[in-house]
Order: sequence, then C-alpha cells, then structure tokens
Amino acid sequence: MSSTIRPQSKLSLEDFSVNDEFVSREVEVTLDEIRSYAAKFDPQPFHLDEMVAEKSFFQGLAASGWHTAGLAMRLLVDTVPIESGIIGAGSEIRWHLPVRPGDRLRSVIAVKSVDKSASRPDRGLIQIEMKTSNQDGKLCQTILARLVVFCRSPKSAVS
Amino acid sequence: MSSTIRPQSKLSLEDFSVNDEFVSREVEVTLDEIRSYAAKFDPQPFHLDEMVAEKSFFQGLAASGWHTAGLAMRLLVDTVPIESGIIGAGSEIRWHLPVRPGDRLRSVIAVKSVDKSASRPDRGLIQIEMKTSNQDGKLCQTILARLVVFCRSPKSAVS
Repeated sequence: MSSTIRPQSKLSLEDFSVNDEFVSREVEVTLDEIRSYAAKFDPQPFHLDEMVAEKSFFQGLAASGWHTAGLAMRLLVDTVPIESGIIGAGSEIRWHLPVRPGDRLRSVIAVKSVDKSASRPDRGLIQIEMKTSNQDGKLCQTILARLVVFCRSPKSAVS
Repeated sequence: MSSTIRPQSKLSLEDFSVNDEFVSREVEVTLDEIRSYAAKFDPQPFHLDEMVAEKSFFQGLAASGWHTAGLAMRLLVDTVPIESGIIGAGSEIRWHLPVRPGDRLRSVIAVKSVDKSASRPDRGLIQIEMKTSNQDGKLCQTILARLVVFCRSPKSAVS
C-alpha cells in the first residue's frame, strides 16, 4: 500500500521512494479557457465551436489534449515541490476521455522508479505516473514522465 | 528519399504513406509568451525569472517543455490539414535542448506508419514523428504521435 505524501519542505532525490503517492488539488476547466488555449495552440473546430463539436469525433466541445497536459503539469508543480525544480527529460502521454467545459480535474502522482545516475553523482532520474481524472473519477489522461532530480548535497556527493 | 508535401486539400487516411514528409512554417517564441504560458501552466523560476534562470539547470530562461509541445501542435494543425481533424490517441515526447526567448521554431513531420483499423473500417491509425528545431537547425523536441484518421468515404467503406 502506498501512502499519500503532503510535503512540508522541498524534495531532493533522497526523499523519493518507489510507490510514493501525491494527490493534487482540483482544478476547474472553463469553456473560456478551453477556447483560449485552442485559439493559440490547437485551433480545431471541436475545441472552439460547440455546434460543430457536437457532430465531431468528440461528440461535444473538448479541451485540447495539450491543454490537459499543461493543466496536469500545473497540478504537478503545485503538489510535488522539488528543490531543483521539475525538469522533464521526456514523457509518454495517453488521452482516454475528452475533458469537457466545467470538468474538475485532479491528478494522482505515483513514483514508479528512482535511480541515481552512475556517471553524475549529484543527480538521478525518477519516473512518475500522473493519472488525471475528472469529477466523476473517470480517467482522462495518463502521463508517464522522466524527471531529472538533484541530490540534497551535490558537492559532498561528488567529493 | 521522402518528398515534402504541401497539401492543397484536406487529407484522409488514403492520402498518407510511410515516409511522407511535411515542413511547417516558422514560429517565433517571445519572452512574454514564455512567461505567460509558464505563469499559467508551469510557474517555475527558470521559466519566469531571467536572473534565477541563469543559475538553474537550464543556464538561462527557457520555455516550458509543454509550451514547446503546444507550439508544435499549432504547427502541425497549420501544416497537415486532416479532413476529420487531428485526433491524438497518445504521444511520446522528448526534450533535447531548451527553447529560448527569440528562438524561431520549425517542425518537420514524417509519417512513420499507416494502419487501417481491422475492427472499424471507417478509420485507421497513423504514427507521425514531429522534429522541432530552432533557427540554428538544432533539434529541441521530438514528438512521436498516434493519430486517429478517418477514411475518405466512411459510409461506402462500411457497406
């Protein structure tokens, strides 16, 4: 069983263990924000126009998947305070269900692996899985992310 | 050798072949846009504050990787006009180099696979690789994306 962590201070590589779990706050996704993101980054009718979206693959207006990814990143930044910052090396992302105007999203972040670097003793790589669900508990998006995390005392680790 | 395609009309599954290549226009990334995206989706000092960013992992202000992903999506929408829209099932994303204020990004989009659905004759799945580089031709980001693409005549294909 994993336990939910609510960090009181900033975290370093030593603070992470496999199966650690963090639960974010909730964020509401408004129609205006969906349209505003889409107008800039993903200007397709099913993200912009409710009438057209009804007849589309999504059967209603849906947020851009990259908008949902950005919101999950925001929840991660607010939930897992890493001393050296959240530095992504790469991610795998899957979209399971459309995110709709008015949806309230929450992410559960689980640590899947923690590896110290063999060549650079001041840092390591952790792998986290972020599952983002809506207010009905339905899974909308999964992100598997690799993060570079520094050790608490890089200088002493090097010497 | 792949050839660069500049579509004159909207594309369906039948129009894609492995090794097709599309080249996007260029998009400039401004300091204001980097900060504005970061303030909303990735409020970390190395995306917001030039002084702090100098001493960070990125050694200077850098765009959020999710901002770069959004920009690549915009270039994809503007470059590859799919009749049924660009519908992502999932993506793998890697960040190779920081994107800096003033960088001009361009994406090269290559078709890696085209598969008709065995169970749903009106659609298929294509896999594309988007390589996004800066004005010096240095690769900043790679996205491997799976897209659902519909056939030109879904009704006749079903019957």
